[in-house]
Amino acid sequence: MTDFQGKPVLVTGGLGLLGSAIARHLVHAGARVTIVDSLEPLFGGNRNNIASIENQVEVHIGDIGDTDLMARLVRGKTHIFELAAQISHMDSMHNPQRDLAINCAGTLGLLELCRRLAPEIRVVFASTRQIYGTPQYLPVDEQHRLRPPDINGIHKVAAEDYHRLYNEVYGLRSTTLRLTNIYGPGMRVRDARQTFVGLWFKLLIEGRPISIFGDGQQRRDFTYVDDCAEAFLAAAGDAHVGATYNLGGDGPVSLTELARRMMAANGGGEVAHIPFPADRKAIDIGDYWADDSAFRGASDWLPRTSLDKGLQSTLAFYRQHLPAYL
Amino acid sequence: MTDFQGKPVLVTGGLGLLGSAIARHLVHAGARVTIVDSLEPLFGGNRNNIASIENQVEVHIGDIGDTDLMARLVRGKTHIFELAAQISHMDSMHNPQRDLAINCAGTLGLLELCRRLAPEIRVVFASTRQIYGTPQYLPVDEQHRLRPPDINGIHKVAAEDYHRLYNEVYGLRSTTLRLTNIYGPGMRVRDARQTFVGLWFKLLIEGRPISIFGDGQQRRDFTYVDDCAEAFLAAAGDAHVGATYNLGGDGPVSLTELARRMMAANGGGEVAHIPFPADRKAIDIGDYWADDSAFRGASDWLPRTSLDKGLQSTLAFYRQHLPAYL
Repeated sequence: MTDFQGKPVLVTGGLGLLGSAIARHLVHAGARVTIVDSLEPLFGGNRNNIASIENQVEVHIGDIGDTDLMARLVRGKTHIFELAAQISHMDSMHNPQRDLAINCAGTLGLLELCRRLAPEIRVVFASTRQIYGTPQYLPVDEQHRLRPPDINGIHKVAAEDYHRLYNEVYGLRSTTLRLTNIYGPGMRVRDARQTFVGLWFKLLIEGRPISIFGDGQQRRDFTYVDDCAEAFLAAAGDAHVGATYNLGGDGPVSLTELARRMMAANGGGEVAHIPFPADRKAIDIGDYWADDSAFRGASDWLPRTSLDKGLQSTLAFYRQHLPAYL
Repeated sequence: MTDFQGKPVLVTGGLGLLGSAIARHLVHAGARVTIVDSLEPLFGGNRNNIASIENQVEVHIGDIGDTDLMARLVRGKTHIFELAAQISHMDSMHNPQRDLAINCAGTLGLLELCRRLAPEIRVVFASTRQIYGTPQYLPVDEQHRLRPPDINGIHKVAAEDYHRLYNEVYGLRSTTLRLTNIYGPGMRVRDARQTFVGLWFKLLIEGRPISIFGDGQQRRDFTYVDDCAEAFLAAAGDAHVGATYNLGGDGPVSLTELARRMMAANGGGEVAHIPFPADRKAIDIGDYWADDSAFRGASDWLPRTSLDKGLQSTLAFYRQHLPAYL
């Protein structure tokens, strides 16, 4: 495990679900953490996410496309965890140029700054399972062909490839983790932009029915946010330079089964099956779960939180904090 | 073969080597041709390229990123041949954001206009062999893995993928052709931005030595521009909607052998072997030649111009027209 004691570390998107969890883990590991986050209302950032560490981190509200700001923030850092992104699949279809500006131009700009101002920096980049598209086999490993079903996926492929190229051509030391559904305290719950699971928590707590599109038989996997944050810290190790890994969780469950377990954790609830909206169906990938044995084998990482335990913690959090996330 | 008689057709990058050749072939097939080209000094456009058809085509000087202009040009067209691009590999490394703006934002903007204003339009898109990176086997077929060695290649992968996605999600009817080195009358010869072959023609005619980087043993394939233009017209057929094909030429030759044949066609010349510049070596792909049997099998297309004949025609052209290309 990397020794982060006293290290100056930058987390982009550091007020989001995963960025803030990484920031917390870094603070606990002794790092001097700087966060940059746009707090763009349609994205995942929320100041409440860093309530427990707010006096221990430096926070900048700004866009990763702001070259002057980012130059100041990148200079002198030993590590950067790149979480800032537009992650809504639907929004990427409705406004593809905005997705391009953030996920491609923003990432590329940041890598240019890194190679020029901080060539020794260690980068860990958050990518997505979405780039595989509809799986040809399950579980999906890193050799699976890439066939993004939406604009967001196309741009994440390019952003991954920038990291590979800057590693090959300029020696910039980066690692990419491909994420599946991340959930936990701090997730966006006011709508389904981050994942539908967020919205489900809100509906359950409000005593309203969970909507499942179609028959709910599609299976997915889920990573608890603290497990995922631990993976990011582990991925910063020297052994992983130039590598790209899947991250999974506690095995796949169907969406119907997920709803059942969430209702059990909640002590009640209701499901409404509704027809799959055509625009969502067009970019849906069906069943997906990750083969993350490559990363498990190459690191000490194991997801430690069972799905049931994670759902309980998340519900407990939102019973207390829901108003801060509406 | 598509009947182009009377059809309103748009060619982007239509003053370039290949765009102008496609425009000529379309005019001869009876199409009503509109050309848009930026005449950006570092790109391939040259008004001399349409000298033989200048009274038969409508020409707009402008950028594909100019949404108002492009909306006017796309509306009412039956076909669009997309040639406009930043194609210099080195320039893409020195100014990656510019490559992104043209090859990603420009392409995406054009596809958005097509799906909104001309959903029935037939699109043929020019991609590049560069996206394969260093070949794992030869000849390279369309199933070869994609591993772009430079920013330009990464953006062309994304641009191809936009076309696939807009076909799958919106039914936009497109075909992609992956090109190798295109040469012939009309190519950029003032430097190696389009291909090193252009510069070689200029040096030969000026009586100066051709520079070969390294040992010159890397083998490449070359498509004569009129053969390539015929392929683009053939690719507009209904049978090719949604397909992606390689285009090759008259078999591979080493760069040393190419230089020898160019000097023979020229009746003399000289070669200087110089060390491979480090920045070019870093993105060089070594040997490459295309397996284009998929397109040959699916169409009536065959490259008809032998390398020797093509080299002779090109030399004859530049002996007459060199000043217009300096």
